Parts: sequence; structure tokens; C-alpha cells
Amino acid sequence: MLSQPSNKYQAFPQINLPDRQWPSRTITAPPRWLSTDLRDGNQSIIDPMDAVKKNRFFDLLIEIGVKEIEVGFPSAGATEFDFIQGLVRSGKVPLDVKLQVLTQSREDLIRTSFESVEGAHSAIVHLYNAVSPAWRNIVFRMSKDEVRNIAKTGAQIMRDEAAKRPDTDWHFQYSPETFSTAELDFSIAVCEEVMGVLQPTPEKPIILNLPATVEAATPNIYADQIEYFCRNLPNRESAVISLHTHNDRGTGVAAAELGIMAGADRVEGCLFGNGERTGNCCLVTVALNMYTQGIDPGLDFSDIDRVIETVEYCNDIPVHQRHPYGGELVFTAFSGSHQDAIKKGFAASETQNDALWRVPYLPIDPADLGRDYEAVIRVNSQSGKGGFAWVLEQDQGLKLPKKMQADFSRHVQHLADDLGRELDAHDIWGAFQNAYHVQTENKHFQLVDYEESRASDGTRIFAGTIAVKGEEQRVSGRGNGLISSVLSTIEESFGLDLQIRDYTEHALGSGRDARAAAYLECEGADGATIWGVGIDEDVATASVRAVLSAANSAVR
Amino acid sequence: MLSQPSNKYQAFPQINLPDRQWPSRTITAPPRWLSTDLRDGNQSIIDPMDAVKKNRFFDLLIEIGVKEIEVGFPSAGATEFDFIQGLVRSGKVPLDVKLQVLTQSREDLIRTSFESVEGAHSAIVHLYNAVSPAWRNIVFRMSKDEVRNIAKTGAQIMRDEAAKRPDTDWHFQYSPETFSTAELDFSIAVCEEVMGVLQPTPEKPIILNLPATVEAATPNIYADQIEYFCRNLPNRESAVISLHTHNDRGTGVAAAELGIMAGADRVEGCLFGNGERTGNCCLVTVALNMYTQGIDPGLDFSDIDRVIETVEYCNDIPVHQRHPYGGELVFTAFSGSHQDAIKKGFAASETQNDALWRVPYLPIDPADLGRDYEAVIRVNSQSGKGGFAWVLEQDQGLKLPKKMQADFSRHVQHLADDLGRELDAHDIWGAFQNAYHVQTENKHFQLVDYEESRASDGTRIFAGTIAVKGEEQRVSGRGNGLISSVLSTIEESFGLDLQIRDYTEHALGSGRDARAAAYLECEGADGATIWGVGIDEDVATASVRAVLSAANSAVR
Repeated sequence: MLSQPSNKYQAFPQINLPDRQWPSRTITAPPRWLSTDLRDGNQSIIDPMDAVKKNRFFDLLIEIGVKEIEVGFPSAGATEFDFIQGLVRSGKVPLDVKLQVLTQSREDLIRTSFESVEGAHSAIVHLYNAVSPAWRNIVFRMSKDEVRNIAKTGAQIMRDEAAKRPDTDWHFQYSPETFSTAELDFSIAVCEEVMGVLQPTPEKPIILNLPATVEAATPNIYADQIEYFCRNLPNRESAVISLHTHNDRGTGVAAAELGIMAGADRVEGCLFGNGERTGNCCLVTVALNMYTQGIDPGLDFSDIDRVIETVEYCNDIPVHQRHPYGGELVFTAFSGSHQDAIKKGFAASETQNDALWRVPYLPIDPADLGRDYEAVIRVNSQSGKGGFAWVLEQDQGLKLPKKMQADFSRHVQHLADDLGRELDAHDIWGAFQNAYHVQTENKHFQLVDYEESRASDGTRIFAGTIAVKGEEQRVSGRGNGLISSVLSTIEESFGLDLQIRDYTEHALGSGRDARAAAYLECEGADGATIWGVGIDEDVATASVRAVLSAANSAVR
Repeated sequence: MLSQPSNKYQAFPQINLPDRQWPSRTITAPPRWLSTDLRDGNQSIIDPMDAVKKNRFFDLLIEIGVKEIEVGFPSAGATEFDFIQGLVRSGKVPLDVKLQVLTQSREDLIRTSFESVEGAHSAIVHLYNAVSPAWRNIVFRMSKDEVRNIAKTGAQIMRDEAAKRPDTDWHFQYSPETFSTAELDFSIAVCEEVMGVLQPTPEKPIILNLPATVEAATPNIYADQIEYFCRNLPNRESAVISLHTHNDRGTGVAAAELGIMAGADRVEGCLFGNGERTGNCCLVTVALNMYTQGIDPGLDFSDIDRVIETVEYCNDIPVHQRHPYGGELVFTAFSGSHQDAIKKGFAASETQNDALWRVPYLPIDPADLGRDYEAVIRVNSQSGKGGFAWVLEQDQGLKLPKKMQADFSRHVQHLADDLGRELDAHDIWGAFQNAYHVQTENKHFQLVDYEESRASDGTRIFAGTIAVKGEEQRVSGRGNGLISSVLSTIEESFGLDLQIRDYTEHALGSGRDARAAAYLECEGADGATIWGVGIDEDVATASVRAVLSAANSAVR
């Protein structure tokens, strides 16, 4: 057993905010989005992206609609610097997109960072230094005054470097690292110091980014910290409050959402939650969570599979099968009761009076993400009737009568148990053909041709050629209608007693290529239920085939 | 672009609970845990587990310490039933473990469920029916009265079936499906109805499980729903409130945590968040989140890799590289500043006065999960000096002087850029050997043997054999100490002028196999810094080798 953790770990302290407002708020508008895929994301992958991959990722971010993109850490080395400067010179940065570069608070590094984006239309220089006690005491061994001074000096250099380059629209961002584990009042004091130097205004605000560099508490604590910060920061209206959460406790998305409710204006993160260790906040999830609440997030994931393809290629990390919105399995139901509810939901949506999405078990319409409905219902040994019926309808257009679904489900269940794997549409169609002798060779009775006529007493006369085990025979019979005339024929010619119980038929497809599907429920001589299916271009022939289908089952 | 969602999706309504208490609470004790890996987990995977896999998963859950295990849906088919009954008869269910079986509210299904666990020491029969409006209106087309009646009748059958089998300690669980999207007061009314039949007491409470079957709102809303439910349920003390969250919005863990703060007693979920679509709440994450707050969760993940191995084998779904606590990359730092902070944290923890875990960027000690520290720092082109220095120390025991780290970092950076991939310990050691001519063949100067003696004036005399490009030469020199005598020798014999600037040496390993590592900082004739390294069983010989190492660099 794990030893008692009590002497090794401590509970994260509560924030003193008894009149907190955020739990009563709702998100009503999207935040500003900053992608740090090319910085925090890139620094956390086994093989960092080369320039080709970085460019491809950048292009994707532009297409999605991200307007603020952290493109790297230019002072880290020539590779980073050259990529960033190349991007600026490429001319492919749209006028409404801001490049952001991260720098530690050292004069040479700040200068290099400005140089890296020289020539950009607009850019954000992002300064950070560590303010939290663990970093002060363990990593840097600095006093609070020294820490505050580092931030102030950095801000002064930023101000002066920007002033030297008036052709670029400069924006400033400051991160008190690691905000979530720092003393709140000290973080505010350091931010005030930086604001004192940079003199932001409501028209030209500073971005104050508040990182949960390592997620260390439940997400409500982060929201408390954000609300406390927003309420106690002097000159709040001259600051854009930005969230930067990580996912060490699996609640990075929640922390960002509650942080928005607590007053933040902006969210930093990565697509599909790439980033250091457990990753950054997933921008796809936060954005689409808003979308499902009727809020346009301003980011476009209408072809999510293309997004996934690029992200997986650049990061060389797969998007997990169960990742919200993007995972391969997230719109899939294998269980019968889920499949049944989804089918009913789709059917109901065709008749409802408004456009609201109400399909059970699907929090978003897969079509909104460019996904089709094929993956929604998949059939394995856990699936009930709803599943294969959906697949047969989607794949072949067949709408089986409910009682027939029960009959066919035995066949599907046996096949699933035998194969011990998921059944695809091909498996299910094959099982259907075998079960009901549809469009298969080597069956006992095979229709060759026929004609029908009306007798003088009004009854119908069936006369046709049927191959019995390959040998053709001329046969005929009479009844009140076409189906009963065929049933008479097979009773008289082959001694098979089948009584009709029910019959349905529907069109398969539409227009000139439309065919017909006929379903026939019969009772055999021993009282057993026997089903027949016929598919043909001709409505009448489909019925004849359905009778022979039942006859083929009866002789077995 | 995605079309405006405003006519297709709606915001989830707020819960009217202005005096909510949960945001001021902290989790102080673990909940009861229920694993539904064998039910909700199993019904959501492409190839459901066979009996061998189910048994293996069950054994794992017992080892971890899970005391309540939902083992299936016995009325779904013979396979499920037989596995459950087999488990009961196997005798391997510990006395303190309760098997749980899920059933819809139909007489035959409830009866089959009781039969499946017949003979068990104790068991939980878990009844559910849908109470939410979407399910009432779209799936079942039932009135509220009909829905309430289904629950009541099911409870009566449960009560009667249990009474027939007095040898088992029966427990009852009821889930108003899909609680999170149902009217709260109606859910409470239906639960009251069920409690009226089953007559729970504080000593023998009913379990009321409140599923967020599909996650449909931010996690604070679920917490509000739980607190509302707990505050308004009559006879609250006779009910165990159980959470069952899903992860459609990526906040299933957060919803469970806030739900515990809101008053719940129990959490249902799966290991590593398997389950329908985006998965259930991840029990590993919730439990270890508590562990990092000083709370013993009562679940044992001290060998997390063995847990992962079994879970991946049974589900045939990988645990993602960034999954909290379990993922391959979650304790890894590639970036230099992170690596540096982690190194300092480890160093500081050796001298601190308490047992508290304070290593930056590591929310938990990997050793608590049975992980070693090798994966903590990995080196690629994004890494700085801290990274390879850590690897050299972990792998070879070498503690490079800080200035020498800067020298060696150029070599590592070049190698990382050249190879374009992550560097492993072998790569770094190879680069070190090449850079400083350590234990390599074909170097310019190679020590063959030597002896040292003291002259009558107190100076040291070095006399030895050195192979120069393979040809051995007898050489000698004199100095104030061993190192200076070797420096004199190479100056007199080979014309190489090296001045010593600094020297350090440390033991490599301990005991009889201990060796010594010597680091020598020299200044060459042109003022350049030249480093030398020597490793040998003998302390003095290590110094001599360090001089020759520097000489080898100087002649290049």
C-alpha cells in the first residue's frame, strides 16, 4: 500500500473569499485565445518541431481563427530566433494576428526577443519571472524585493526597446510565475510595479497572465485566486487578465472555465492539450464547450479531423480515443440501450418544431465537426437490436420491422460471440444475406422468372420458373393476391406450408435507381415464425423474392 | 467557419442556490470508491473483455483496494451472467468486497440480477430508470407518474427478491438517470418514492447514485445539483450519495471533486477514465489528487506501471502519454529551466528539515508511484545545461563543475541539432567521452604508466610513459604538486603551454569499487579555456588523466 502521505504532502490552503461571485456566474462570451502550441507545446515534446512542422502548425492556427500565437522563446537559440524572424519576413502573418514571444527578465534576452519580431505589424512581448516562494527559496534564492526588482527592470527594458521600434504595434504581457502557488498579494504587488513602468490604459491594456504552472489544487481554488486578483488589482480596467492552466490534476479545462467566470478575459493553451507534463489547457475543449452552450467561440473546428491530422503530425503524440470532441470513440455507442436512445433521438429531431439539438448521448452534433454519423453506432457483443438495425439502415437503407429485428439479433449476437470482435457494416450485411438468403448463390429455391395474371374469378395466378437445387421447374399457383398465389405455388409444388402473418415493403433509395425491400412474416407448419426478405427493382418481384426467402428458411 | 450555434444549442440553466456552501469547503477524507470498469468501462470498448480479461481486471481491482465493484449487467446475456455467477462461486471475492450488478426496472431483469449474485456474502443490486425530460419525451414517451411508478415497482421487486435470499447481505442502489439533465425536485421525489419502499436507515443506508450520464455543464453546476439534492432529500442520513460523472466536456474529474465538496460520500468511475464516449471519471486521478493533499485515498497505486499494463491489456486502449499520474511524459521535463529547477529541488530536499515534498514541477514524488527518476529529465534540443548534467550524474555519477557544464552544453546542443531527436543517456555519455577524450582510443596523448616522487627541495617529480599518436615516449617534469609536474612535463616534452585555473575532484560510487573523477580548468597559450577530465580507480591517476585530457584538447 502507499504509505500515509500525511507527512509528505499538505492540503492546498483555502482562499479567503467568502463573498466570491464566480459560482453564480455563467460564461456568456468567448475569451481571447492564445495558442502556445509553438512554445509551451513545442518545448514539451520528445522531438521538437522543425521549421516545416512549425510552419504547418502556424498555418493551421491561422485557419482555425487564432489571433494571438506564441511562436517561441527567441533567446533560447538560433533555431528559435530564425524561425520567428522568418515568419515575420514571410509576410504570411495576417494583419489581425499578433505574434507573441516569451522572454526571461534579462536585458540581453529581452533585446533578442524584440529583435526576433522586428518588422512585425504588431507583436506581444511576454516577460516572466518567478515570484512564488518555492522558486524564490529553492531555485533562485532571492528576496521578495529582488524578485520585484527583476520584474520592474525587465518592464523598463521592454518599454525602452519598444520605444526604439515605433513601426511595430507593441503589446506587453507579464506573467508572475508560478502564480497559482504564489502569495496573491505579492503577485498583485509585482504586477502593479510592472504596470507602473508600462503605464497601460483601457485602450492599450497590459496582458497579465496568471499561470497555474503546475496544477496544485481543485479548480475552484484557481477561480478564487483569479477573482481575488481581479478585485484587488488597482487599475484593473487597464489589464487583460489571462489564464494559463496546466492539467496535473486532470482539471485544467475546468480551472480555465471557472477562471473565466471569475473575471478573466483571455485563455492560453494548446490544441488537444499538448504541453509540459500532463499538458496545457485544451483550447479545442474549452472552445467547443462554449459552442455547445450556444456561444460562438470564434474558433473553427468544423473539420476537426484535419485539425487532428496536423496536430498529430507536428507533435508526434496521438489524440486519445476518448479526448473530448476529437477522440475516435467519443461519439460512439456500443451498448444497445444507448443505441436505441440515439436512434429515437435522430427520428424525433426530424419532426420537432425548433432547431435545437436534443439527441441523447451526443452532447454535440458530430456533423458540426465534420464527422459523419457512421461512427455513432458501432456493433459488438454488447450491442442490442438498435445497433445493427441502425447500421443496416445507414449502410443498406433497410428498415427492418421491429419484430424482425429481434429475429435477426440472434444471428448478430452469435456472429459477434463467434468472431469475438466488433462487427462492421460488411459483417452485418453478410450476416443478413446469409440469414435470409438475400442475393446469395446456392440456395434451395431460386427465382428464375415469373409472370402473374388475373383469373376470371378475380384471383391471381402465379406462373414461373424456380430452380430447385439448381434444377429449373415450371410451377404455378393461385391466390387472392400475388403473395398468396406464390405461397400456394410452393405448397402445391414443394409441400411447404407457410401462412402469412404480416407484410411490409418500402422503397430503397429514390429516383430511377430506387429499389424495393419487402419483409414477410410467416408461420410455418410447426407454428414457428419464419421471416422472408426480398429486394428488387420491381415492387412485385421483391414480394415474390420475400416468399422464396421464407421458403428457403423453411426447408432448412 | 462553424455556423453560429445560437439556434442549435442552449446554455445550461443556473441552479438556484445562492447560499451554496461547497466553494468554501475542502476535501478532508476519501469517499467510498466504486469501480465500474467491468460494466460501464466494458460496454464502451471495441472488443469487450472475455472472462480471462475480466478476471484479471477484477484481481487488479482487489489488489488496489477497491471494495465495491460493479461486475456487469447480468440480464444482458448468458456471457455476463455466467461470468458474475462464476465469480461468486470462485470464492475469490474477499469478505469486505461487495459485488454490484446493474439492472433496468423490469421484473424478469431484476430477478435475473439477483440470481446472478446468488450465494455472495454481500452484494449491491443497482436499479436505474430514466427520469430526465429528454428520455421521458424522446426515448420512452412516458409521463412523470409512469416514470415514478417504474422506479417504485422496481424497488418493490428488489425488496421482495432480497427477502427470499436472507443468506446474502443485500444493499440497494438507485440511479435516477440522467440525473444531471433532469429536474432536481423530480429526481428527489423519485428517490423518496424508492426510499419509501426500501426503508433505508442510517445503519443500512440506500446508495443514491446521481449520474452525469452525459456531461452537459461546467462542473460547478454539477456541484450545485449535488448540494441541492443533499440539502433537500428527506431522510438524508439514510442515504449514501454517490457520484457518477462522465467527461464529455473534459471536466469529469473536477465535477467529482466539487461534488464531494458538495456533500457526496461515494465516487463511481473507471481506472484511467475508461467508459462510454469520453469516459467515466478517472478513479486514479481523483484518488492521487487526494494523496497529493495529504489524504490517504485508501487505494494503492504504488506500482502504477503494473496497473497501467493490466488496464491497457484488458481494455485495449492506451493510457495517454499525458494522462495525469500515469502517462509516460507526465514527470518529464525537456526544457532547460524546468530541468534546472527540478535539480535544485532534489538537492534542497536533501538538506531540508521536514519530510515535505517541494520539488518544483513535480506535483508528486514519482517514487510514490513506483517510478524512478530517470524519466524526470530528458534531453533534446530544447534542453539546457541542467538536463544533460542531471543525466550524466544519474547515469555516470559525474558532477560537472558549473562552468564546465556551460562548456559541454555546446557539444550537446550541436549533437541534438545534428541528430534532430531526443538524446538518451548513451548519446550524452558518448558526447562527453568525445569532447574530453575520456576512455577513448586513438587520442593524441595516451597515458601508459607513470610514477611520482618527491625531490629533496620538496617539489614533485613526474616520470612516465606517454604514447603520442601511438608511439611511446619516456617523459618527465617537475612542479609544486602532481598536477603542475605533469603540466611541466607536457610543456617541456611537447611544447604545450597550459596554465591551471581550477581543479575539483570527487568520488564516483562508494566502497571497494569507488573511482575518482577529476576536472581541470586550464588556460591555453591563446587565453582560451580548456577543460580536462580524468576518471580512474586511483585519485592521483585521475588527476594525471585530467591533464592529458586537457592536453588532447589543446593539440586539436
